[in-house]
Amino acid sequence: MADGCLFCSIVAGETSAHVVLDAPMVVAFLDHRPLFAGHALVVPRRHVETLSDLDDHTRDELFATVQRVAAAVQTATDSAGSFVAMNNVVSQSVPHAHVHVVPRNPKDGLRGFFWPRTRYAGGEAEAVADAIRRALAPNATM
Amino acid sequence: MADGCLFCSIVAGETSAHVVLDAPMVVAFLDHRPLFAGHALVVPRRHVETLSDLDDHTRDELFATVQRVAAAVQTATDSAGSFVAMNNVVSQSVPHAHVHVVPRNPKDGLRGFFWPRTRYAGGEAEAVADAIRRALAPNATM
Repeated sequence: MADGCLFCSIVAGETSAHVVLDAPMVVAFLDHRPLFAGHALVVPRRHVETLSDLDDHTRDELFATVQRVAAAVQTATDSAGSFVAMNNVVSQSVPHAHVHVVPRNPKDGLRGFFWPRTRYAGGEAEAVADAIRRALAPNATM
Repeated sequence: MADGCLFCSIVAGETSAHVVLDAPMVVAFLDHRPLFAGHALVVPRRHVETLSDLDDHTRDELFATVQRVAAAVQTATDSAGSFVAMNNVVSQSVPHAHVHVVPRNPKDGLRGFFWPRTRYAGGEAEAVADAIRRALAPNATM
């Protein structure tokens, strides 16, 4: 448990929250300022800050739980779909890794979080793709 | 491969894309209309529509790859953080499951995708939490 971490405190039961799932490695609870009712956060019990910091087992358990919670949130709120999102470092309000699960419906008024889109200039896409491939090496399969 | 699916066509090499990772179960390539340069999409090779449709093994492989790609995109673009997101059904432009990996930096101008937030009315949070717990049963551990 990290000192002063809100999510560690919720996981420990020291700060109250509407917990919906309490599993050995992962806990899920309602975001107290939801985008829509049912907006849940899924967190690893152990304090790690970002996606990169998750060990393989915890990462697998976290996203297995996200899959379950997304289906449950959608059922519970009778929603058409879901939005699953994770901010790492930037826009991450609590530095304890967490995945947002938000129920979605057509014309629900959620602002265009995927906007504004841009376009690559000539050669720019090739250059950034090359840089990503290099950063993936030596594990990359191409 | 699903007829007429853009991402199946990219996975099969029939539609060109800037592929950055080509693994047995998962493929990653640049979004052609990025939020920021380096914006990648990570997809299962096999056609499934949403998070709920992913079998356990594919889900584990997909998010293991997302973790690797997020680190590589951040390194390649010298970014401070990342945004990882998945739209299921609503706002899902291509009905082949895909995870967005977007490089992020402070004050990068990305519009408030987590806005507007709302508040629960009295009793509303308890009711929706109960409904989610019921939807998670019988697998839930509480």
